[in-house]
Amino acid sequence: MSDLDTLSVNTVRGLCMDAIEKARSGHPGTPMGMAPVAYTLWQRFLRFDPADPIWPNRDRFVLSEGHASALLWSLLHLTGVRAVDPDYEVLGRPAVTLEDLKSFRRLDSRCPGHPEYRWTSGVETTTGPLGQGVATSVGMAIAGQWLAARYNRDDYTLFDFDVYALAGDGCMMEGISSEAASLAGHLQLPNLCWIYDSNRVTIEGHTDITFTEDVAARFLAYGWNVTTVADANDLDQVSRAFHTFRAESRRPTLILVHSHIGYGSPVEDSPKAHGTPFGPDGVRATKRFLGLPPDAEFHIPDGIEDWFARGIGARGARLRADWEKAFDAYRGAHPSLADELERIQRRELPDGWDSALPAFPADPKGLATRDSSGQVLTAVAQAVPWVLGGSADLAPSTRTRLAFAGAGDFQPGDRAGRNLHLGIREHAAAAVANGMALTKLRPYWSGFLIFSDYAKAAIRLSALMEIPTVHIFTHDSIGVGEDGPTHQPVEQLAGLRATPGLLVFRPADAGEVVETWRVVAALRHEPAALVLSRQALPTLDRADGRIAGASGVAQGAYVLVDAPSGEPRVILLATGSEVATALAAHDELTAEGIASRVVSMPCWELFDRQPREYRDQVLPPEVAARVAVEEASTLGWDRYVGDGGAVVGMHTFGASAPLKQLLTKFGFTPERVAQVAREVLARTDRGGPGEEVTP
Amino acid sequence: MSDLDTLSVNTVRGLCMDAIEKARSGHPGTPMGMAPVAYTLWQRFLRFDPADPIWPNRDRFVLSEGHASALLWSLLHLTGVRAVDPDYEVLGRPAVTLEDLKSFRRLDSRCPGHPEYRWTSGVETTTGPLGQGVATSVGMAIAGQWLAARYNRDDYTLFDFDVYALAGDGCMMEGISSEAASLAGHLQLPNLCWIYDSNRVTIEGHTDITFTEDVAARFLAYGWNVTTVADANDLDQVSRAFHTFRAESRRPTLILVHSHIGYGSPVEDSPKAHGTPFGPDGVRATKRFLGLPPDAEFHIPDGIEDWFARGIGARGARLRADWEKAFDAYRGAHPSLADELERIQRRELPDGWDSALPAFPADPKGLATRDSSGQVLTAVAQAVPWVLGGSADLAPSTRTRLAFAGAGDFQPGDRAGRNLHLGIREHAAAAVANGMALTKLRPYWSGFLIFSDYAKAAIRLSALMEIPTVHIFTHDSIGVGEDGPTHQPVEQLAGLRATPGLLVFRPADAGEVVETWRVVAALRHEPAALVLSRQALPTLDRADGRIAGASGVAQGAYVLVDAPSGEPRVILLATGSEVATALAAHDELTAEGIASRVVSMPCWELFDRQPREYRDQVLPPEVAARVAVEEASTLGWDRYVGDGGAVVGMHTFGASAPLKQLLTKFGFTPERVAQVAREVLARTDRGGPGEEVTP
Repeated sequence: MSDLDTLSVNTVRGLCMDAIEKARSGHPGTPMGMAPVAYTLWQRFLRFDPADPIWPNRDRFVLSEGHASALLWSLLHLTGVRAVDPDYEVLGRPAVTLEDLKSFRRLDSRCPGHPEYRWTSGVETTTGPLGQGVATSVGMAIAGQWLAARYNRDDYTLFDFDVYALAGDGCMMEGISSEAASLAGHLQLPNLCWIYDSNRVTIEGHTDITFTEDVAARFLAYGWNVTTVADANDLDQVSRAFHTFRAESRRPTLILVHSHIGYGSPVEDSPKAHGTPFGPDGVRATKRFLGLPPDAEFHIPDGIEDWFARGIGARGARLRADWEKAFDAYRGAHPSLADELERIQRRELPDGWDSALPAFPADPKGLATRDSSGQVLTAVAQAVPWVLGGSADLAPSTRTRLAFAGAGDFQPGDRAGRNLHLGIREHAAAAVANGMALTKLRPYWSGFLIFSDYAKAAIRLSALMEIPTVHIFTHDSIGVGEDGPTHQPVEQLAGLRATPGLLVFRPADAGEVVETWRVVAALRHEPAALVLSRQALPTLDRADGRIAGASGVAQGAYVLVDAPSGEPRVILLATGSEVATALAAHDELTAEGIASRVVSMPCWELFDRQPREYRDQVLPPEVAARVAVEEASTLGWDRYVGDGGAVVGMHTFGASAPLKQLLTKFGFTPERVAQVAREVLARTDRGGPGEEVTP
Repeated sequence: MSDLDTLSVNTVRGLCMDAIEKARSGHPGTPMGMAPVAYTLWQRFLRFDPADPIWPNRDRFVLSEGHASALLWSLLHLTGVRAVDPDYEVLGRPAVTLEDLKSFRRLDSRCPGHPEYRWTSGVETTTGPLGQGVATSVGMAIAGQWLAARYNRDDYTLFDFDVYALAGDGCMMEGISSEAASLAGHLQLPNLCWIYDSNRVTIEGHTDITFTEDVAARFLAYGWNVTTVADANDLDQVSRAFHTFRAESRRPTLILVHSHIGYGSPVEDSPKAHGTPFGPDGVRATKRFLGLPPDAEFHIPDGIEDWFARGIGARGARLRADWEKAFDAYRGAHPSLADELERIQRRELPDGWDSALPAFPADPKGLATRDSSGQVLTAVAQAVPWVLGGSADLAPSTRTRLAFAGAGDFQPGDRAGRNLHLGIREHAAAAVANGMALTKLRPYWSGFLIFSDYAKAAIRLSALMEIPTVHIFTHDSIGVGEDGPTHQPVEQLAGLRATPGLLVFRPADAGEVVETWRVVAALRHEPAALVLSRQALPTLDRADGRIAGASGVAQGAYVLVDAPSGEPRVILLATGSEVATALAAHDELTAEGIASRVVSMPCWELFDRQPREYRDQVLPPEVAARVAVEEASTLGWDRYVGDGGAVVGMHTFGASAPLKQLLTKFGFTPERVAQVAREVLARTDRGGPGEEVTP
């Protein structure tokens, strides 16, 4: 351990303290305790070129204890990591300037309170909600193994990156980390290293009050390699642990580091060190203890930046240059694979990827949208080799297994397999998919819609990060039938639709499923949730012109069938399985001479983005009589049905019974929809207000 | 193992197969494999009186693998468990008749697809979503320990019940079970026994494809006692395992049972056995293998019911009679404690429980609703000794710690403590609270609103079960400030409000907090979510009559301040921290001579239940100019603002910055609200449509 090592570590600590102090807000505890470990990793081990923070074969560093963001910001600044624009162009300017550090936690600073992916380059994934980072890191490690299996060739090791995640006691307590660790252990991911910052202090006190399990034994039970560092400040011990990880070839590694929260400060080893600035006196005292000039703020001693440049900087530059050279040769030897890799990096699909999407002939019996989606997914995956994914143990039910020749299973013995068995671990499944999406693969995962609840926090992060994770949810309503209310989603659609930036699709038939995938597969910066039926839905006959083609999915909502006159008196709005119900109600109304229009509304978010003109075409303001039908909470539909309208929806939980009985019980029959339409029409003709319909 | 044992086990299996076959739907795999274990537990060990399935000191049996419901229905039928009405009156009729079994999974059958609490007596908690049952069982075990510590006296052991939970591979994989097991291990709950049905088969195949961890070692790491049964069919081995549990005095116990999914059927040990009926031929073949008459359906051999009556029936009757006798004596010796216990069983509160609720004087600076809520909670807990709870490691931030003398911490050394340290385990925290509520205590748990996502599946179950769990969420908006978008809820309110039966409260000031708790504490069959601010909110001056008293909280929404004329031209609707913003906007409008009304709307669900007349008084239909203000997704507000209105809400995720900057950035200032009100007024005066406001 050289003087420069010590000075570097303490410089990082000083910057963290100063940033937090200036912000009067932040979490100094972990940066103080773990600076030596993060420093050792970055300076001595991390294969990362600050000049190109998106070099595809870089080692990934995930700060799972995201509240320690100041630690990351300080390292990004000191190592001179460059900024990257939203379309993956490396820019000349630094990711984090000293000014950014000084405006930590201020509006528009590149140093927000927690690491935000796409906002600050060098951030590999957004963290803060505990456990998400470590679970996401498993997806990155899977992606690394998969990329290596598909793209490495005898003479070309294009991918051999490692994934490091720094985790605290909180990450270890969260269930998602258990799920992810169990999966990673099963998959024997040798490129995954979690560093456990065991400071044994959380907000309520010492972990003795609630967290007394033997974490090392638990990870051994998962099949991990476990090594311990007795003193976070001992850089040689820390280095030895990283060497142990590097030498491990068939297990993930947990490095259990005994550390001191708020090291060197007056509140060391106290919960007070976690999330409160030390105060001016505390900072000065700590700087004195660390041998830093007590009154110098944001002090970077001469030579420190150069020292980082000679360490991580020089190593990263050399490795990346070698890689670029190798890739140039690879492009000559394997042009098609190289082309794939370049498209992956730009998040582009192969030309003509959608030319072989299946078409579904009209069929009154039809098929479940889970089935048509499964067929379309297969076509997409055949056209796009880096589409891969899995299910939370429900692939036979969600129809997401890729069964074509060569698809294979991703397992310790087959790293090129494209079917993941994620286990009954929805939360980790979504986070793993996020990790794969962050590595720029095109991943999906699947489960029942009701279990989106288990994964919600990870789904949210895909939206916040603006990454194109595809969340596939089947068994989307009381259509689940006999399994009953525990398995019948009611409020899940509302929660997903309220999530900014998440595109929620509920297609009505196989035709809409094709168009949904056409939109979804091409997404580059948005996640999507597909909401699919368990039960068969008629495949609409869109050939004769009466029923519109399904391309309107791209606008989010479209006129599916209009009144013969083109001047409807009442509009029926529906999504998914209820579109067929609305169509039957429309026929009933037509037979009575009531002019009605059916609007299929598979994606609210896309519809809301359309120009007012288009929206008014679909939902003419002068037609106040509107009935929405959806087997879900009515929350949100009022925006579309307006004051004059009514919503046929769910006001209670479902029930256990065959589907047909449930449709009658809860009022989702054509007769009932037509009846509500008549009532609404009568009311709006009188100018009276609408009323929500309770069955 | 007697002939009657064997016959009983196979009778259970036969009933399960027949019920599933008749329903053409259900999950035969686990009932066939685990019938011997469930039988042994019920017949030889469970201290449960079928004649009084709500006897307070009964052992609890939780079927965490809820898809195996046929197993429970068969046992409830064969043991003659009585029905109980919703107000806890034991009825003469059986909980499950043979007819019910024959209508398994049909509408209104007492035998739905999964066990539903309150629908079928003998069901201790609703299960089906995997992992929930085991996590809930931890709450029941905590409640058992707490009840014993508070109410047992030297001569009276009123509480010594055990809690058994039957769990499958899925339960073990879900993160929530890891959280709950870690907590239970820490708490050293000796009255908790999980039975792990290790059949190593899930829907996608053998667990070898994704679940290869050493579960026994993992539980040893948590601090559990682990014992193994090599053959589920060996009743003596199974009995020995239960004796091992009974002998354990300081750890929870995991009984790892090696079992065969679909035992005896043609699909034994195959994923096909999990969730598909065997078919008529399969059933006949299986019955033949088991020595049952192959063509007799729903066959109960003579003497079997009597055998159960002599086993669990006689034991339960004797134990309960002894208990009732003891309780009669206890009532004499400890009348006040006995009175508490009787109120607990009826879910009633002590007389005058709300007489000492704090009052908060008007204060323009005010205090955060987390702070006022903490004070009110303390008063409630002092008045109601069986109010207890904890936090997912955030008590210092959520202000939910009970700090009065004697409150104590619930720990291995203090079973009477009323503060639980639940750890950074939100999902288990909510499920544990549910388990305590199911044991009829009045529990709460707390966390940040953003982390309600982690706990959503358990929150949902509290609503589905209609139990009064109190979910306390603070840091409820962009008011979180510097921690940024990962910690700022946007869509959570929508998801919670869309959940049927969950009362969501977002009080505006300390006055509304008091009234919120007045409603919430008295709830008997509904859960509540309290949504509270991190930042200080003015305590409104309700004394002079200009601002209405807060008792309107009970109606969900009320006129807080009206136009001096009583004839507003525009209505401002708000909740929580935005009520003060709306009041300031109201003042601005008033100064301009624009008559406006402010409606505080702390609980949509309660408002929706009011008669139309009241709702029209608060929101007169003739006033179309309405502006809602809430720092959350706008989803759902259209119902209240109507076509003419506008919503000032969140359309993106938040940002990391001090609160004041965020309010300006996202448009939550009085000036902006007043401006939107003017615009809306101008539009509605012209008769034009409203428009959602995007900042």
